[in-house]
Amino acid sequence: MALDRDPATRSRAEAFWVLSGLHAVWWYRMNHMLWGWGWTFLARFISQIVRWWTLIEIHPGATIGDRLFIDHGAGVVIGETAIVGDDCTFYHGVTLGGQGDVKNGRRHPTVGNGVVIGAGAIVLGPITVGDNAKIGAGAVVIADVPANRTAVGVPARVLPASGSKGRS
Amino acid sequence: MALDRDPATRSRAEAFWVLSGLHAVWWYRMNHMLWGWGWTFLARFISQIVRWWTLIEIHPGATIGDRLFIDHGAGVVIGETAIVGDDCTFYHGVTLGGQGDVKNGRRHPTVGNGVVIGAGAIVLGPITVGDNAKIGAGAVVIADVPANRTAVGVPARVLPASGSKGRS
Amino acid sequence: MALDRDPATRSRAEAFWVLSGLHAVWWYRMNHMLWGWGWTFLARFISQIVRWWTLIEIHPGATIGDRLFIDHGAGVVIGETAIVGDDCTFYHGVTLGGQGDVKNGRRHPTVGNGVVIGAGAIVLGPITVGDNAKIGAGAVVIADVPANRTAVGVPARVLPASGSKGRS
Repeated sequence: MALDRDPATRSRAEAFWVLSGLHAVWWYRMNHMLWGWGWTFLARFISQIVRWWTLIEIHPGATIGDRLFIDHGAGVVIGETAIVGDDCTFYHGVTLGGQGDVKNGRRHPTVGNGVVIGAGAIVLGPITVGDNAKIGAGAVVIADVPANRTAVGVPARVLPASGSKGRS
Repeated sequence: MALDRDPATRSRAEAFWVLSGLHAVWWYRMNHMLWGWGWTFLARFISQIVRWWTLIEIHPGATIGDRLFIDHGAGVVIGETAIVGDDCTFYHGVTLGGQGDVKNGRRHPTVGNGVVIGAGAIVLGPITVGDNAKIGAGAVVIADVPANRTAVGVPARVLPASGSKGRS
Repeated sequence: MALDRDPATRSRAEAFWVLSGLHAVWWYRMNHMLWGWGWTFLARFISQIVRWWTLIEIHPGATIGDRLFIDHGAGVVIGETAIVGDDCTFYHGVTLGGQGDVKNGRRHPTVGNGVVIGAGAIVLGPITVGDNAKIGAGAVVIADVPANRTAVGVPARVLPASGSKGRS
């Protein structure tokens, strides 16, 4: 599936060996399991080694759906209470972070299925990004984004429904 | 103190082993001492090894106060003539950089005490960020920010004094 | 030439050993040669090792002119079909990326000679940045920038010709 989503990648072998974003997500799956068993120190320690290798930091406590593809990936940070749906695509520099607010015990965003988040975009706080939404590169998102819509800018504004062309 | 400021960190052992931001600042202290002794090549060489390990680049010539906490930290760059006060918190992707202007022999910002700088924010040139100011995530700051105020946006504008809620 | 462009670097030895941006470009030259010979897997594999060491990701297929200087460099991503002229200076966090559009078989930007791109700036799609243009820190550029002009903001707008002072 990484092959479908990354036009620069030509073979399964290349995807397996070269794509840091796949490595980071595979190791996250193991760390999340360790985290669930209460082995929190080991999970965070391994996640730091993975960060060093992949430049991608996914907190072991985050909840991430199937087939997340992180392209390039340098500087990605996904926080402890973030929830990410299935089939999302994140580019490098994406943050799912906190900003002090807490809602139902969570400090980080909820991201739906099929969401695309452009390079350098920062999504902050216990907000919700709806299914198939697109977040433009460099956007700073501090409020909910409805499903199937596109948000761009600093701070991000949601474009009219017709302007749904993604940027990443 | 990192424990107070990072809600995702649960123990002193975790802080010690896992938080790259602490490692980067500890090594900076040594490099800054080497720099003061005139061992500038060694100081910069070690700072590059530390950058490789922590993804945080602090020039050994920078002047940094007590208890700086850098959270996540990937992509942080702090320039040679930057001055940072005590008790500041920086998130990942923060730049204290130059843009060509020189003032009193310095090319980089002066940051006061207790300043919080959000993820991805870029502070450029020999400007001053006052005590307890907050810089929003993704802001590009190219002019002074008064004490106790918040600056957001690209380029950053200072919010009215009532809008002092931080973002990071 | 890195010595001319980086005021924090004091000697040739320091430039040789310390500047990740030089290492990344040197290795890119080799990878690009391997790429031209059809050794695409090896080229991409080495580029991932270089990314791990330098925090800079240059696709081996990119076309890069002489004397590119990448300062600091963490998080830089240069895509497969990007073209960069001679004597350019990029700061850390710069992206030359794709956003889905394809023009003459290319997905990434064309950057002229002598262009300066500020920290964190994201340039997306098969657009053209003219000779000696400057892109401000944190800008998101999604349309052509004429030669000798400066573009800033999210999305970037081109400043009037008099406002040609660079920011980085």
